[in-house]
Amino acid sequence: MKNVERLVAALKRLPGVGPKQSERLAIHLLRAPRGEVENLTEALREAKASVRLCSRCGDFTEREFCRLCADPARDAGLICVVEEPQDVAALERTRAFRGLYHVLHGALSPLEGLGPERLRARELIERVRAGGVREVVLATDPDTEGEATALYLAQLLKPLAAKITRIAHGVPLGGDLDYLDERTLSHALTGRREF
Amino acid sequence: MKNVERLVAALKRLPGVGPKQSERLAIHLLRAPRGEVENLTEALREAKASVRLCSRCGDFTEREFCRLCADPARDAGLICVVEEPQDVAALERTRAFRGLYHVLHGALSPLEGLGPERLRARELIERVRAGGVREVVLATDPDTEGEATALYLAQLLKPLAAKITRIAHGVPLGGDLDYLDERTLSHALTGRREF
Repeated sequence: MKNVERLVAALKRLPGVGPKQSERLAIHLLRAPRGEVENLTEALREAKASVRLCSRCGDFTEREFCRLCADPARDAGLICVVEEPQDVAALERTRAFRGLYHVLHGALSPLEGLGPERLRARELIERVRAGGVREVVLATDPDTEGEATALYLAQLLKPLAAKITRIAHGVPLGGDLDYLDERTLSHALTGRREF
Repeated sequence: MKNVERLVAALKRLPGVGPKQSERLAIHLLRAPRGEVENLTEALREAKASVRLCSRCGDFTEREFCRLCADPARDAGLICVVEEPQDVAALERTRAFRGLYHVLHGALSPLEGLGPERLRARELIERVRAGGVREVVLATDPDTEGEATALYLAQLLKPLAAKITRIAHGVPLGGDLDYLDERTLSHALTGRREF
């Protein structure tokens, strides 16, 4: 049974998948028609092969620039900084923001060894330094790491004279940005204040 | 982004994976080092290629007979009937049972179109008819489908004159067998009563 155990172990490594769910997933996959399993592995293979980070904002894309960065109707003078690609999707659903994004792919987390060099902060500085940016909205999560990240980025960005704002704390503290409903997120964007 | 969406859709089809988790899994997999993803798809491919059902009990195995069916120290006169392979693992952890198993791979569920022909019931009848079986313990889940399945199997098995028992209702009703703690399962096995 070593192959089953290896599969269970590989599934258990996925985020949010516990020992019980990894067993259930393995058994489901072993039982599933070959076509369904091939569809999954093929989707994974193709996504891995084709998906890259947008050269501008760092969101996932299959081209050099993501759909939003390539859209001339978006306001390039306004940059909203988020931790994760899911956050872009969540904010887009509010329809309250017409600027562009910058995806950090994480937040400062000394405990997990996530320092500023891992955060795409340098790319953000370069974008602002290149000029034309009126405002940077810091929309990192309203938890300890997110607040620390916002503070850190605000200090880095201050000398570049852009207006720096933080999404309003209409978002409940300790939460996870991409789990919030659209109205709360919309309020948080509208009520943003100077950092 | 069609490849990302296709991956999210394929992941969402897995049992217990909601829209939110499928997004998180996809992003985790896109970000993960290629080696980690290859380890997962390789484990899946090898498990799919090598794993089959035990010719005797129907549990997953990589040989003709599973580890338990191939063990001469197990009591072949005692068969414990369960719905899922996870249930075998759960019951084995109690160390309260020294017989063999029979895995139905499901329970009667008219709503989901799961009739008796899908349940490996015929294979169970054949095992009992072949002789040498003193007792069949019906250890299907203590929910509606499991009780209906036990009743159905008891009626089928009665003419074959084997002793038919049902695990005691020390297990809480409405529960899922493989989520129970070992002591409750152990009590349920010890207190089994004539069907």
